[in-house]
Amino acid sequence: MKVISIDHIGIAVKSIEESLKIYKSLGLAIHGTEEVEEQKVRTAFLPIGETEIELLESTSPDGPIAKYIESKKEGVQHIALGVENIEEAIAELKAVGIRMIDEKPRYGAGGARIAFIHPSAAHGVLLELCERNRHETGSNSKRNVNDD
Amino acid sequence: MKVISIDHIGIAVKSIEESLKIYKSLGLAIHGTEEVEEQKVRTAFLPIGETEIELLESTSPDGPIAKYIESKKEGVQHIALGVENIEEAIAELKAVGIRMIDEKPRYGAGGARIAFIHPSAAHGVLLELCERNRHETGSNSKRNVNDD
Repeated sequence: MKVISIDHIGIAVKSIEESLKIYKSLGLAIHGTEEVEEQKVRTAFLPIGETEIELLESTSPDGPIAKYIESKKEGVQHIALGVENIEEAIAELKAVGIRMIDEKPRYGAGGARIAFIHPSAAHGVLLELCERNRHETGSNSKRNVNDD
Repeated sequence: MKVISIDHIGIAVKSIEESLKIYKSLGLAIHGTEEVEEQKVRTAFLPIGETEIELLESTSPDGPIAKYIESKKEGVQHIALGVENIEEAIAELKAVGIRMIDEKPRYGAGGARIAFIHPSAAHGVLLELCERNRHETGSNSKRNVNDD
């Protein structure tokens, strides 16, 4: 398997707007926003080099990000690793006994195909596998990109 | 200020050796290790694209990483942002009222000059500013790099 990049770092926040001060002060800017209805989450992505910070705000009190903040407070929720072929990556991890949350890819923000590794396999870190640009259809999310 | 990259992601682990299985399964490899005596920490760095994962293992039960794990369990401890000029970055953040842990740079792993932003300023995320390659002397750490 080849991990190409850290695709993004997902940070759980109560409010994207309120959390922006520090990132703006660092010279970073929101390059787009997206709502992933299935995950009850609104995301804002801020590129840094080849990776990006994704701020994650729950759209519902019973969404996974709201529950995460309730139990663990705001902070880094997951790290997404860019892979070339997600089916191969999942198969390779399963073959060596790594526990997956998702044994088949599903759609994430930006139309990426994603699968989460179980945090018990990574000593408390929630790792996401993320493949971009092979299948662009099928997402139920809406990404709005600022081109300026 | 210009944030160039996510320089590294620091992950607090009880044991570097025990935490390696998942990263090896992902095709990642330790590219070097280093002990930072002042921080009572041993680090192992695993490059991914332009960034790296730094596993952080305490060398003492009273070190900051041991205390972190005691209160918050293993997991992502900090995100380091690469900057071109750390003094300028600190000055710019202070000018807009961002609270710093370090108001002057100090030495971190790899001879980098670093400064932490207070986590209250970043909604629970511990952000590090990290400048590399301008001043290579003065570190009291020992980095061992695998060149294979």
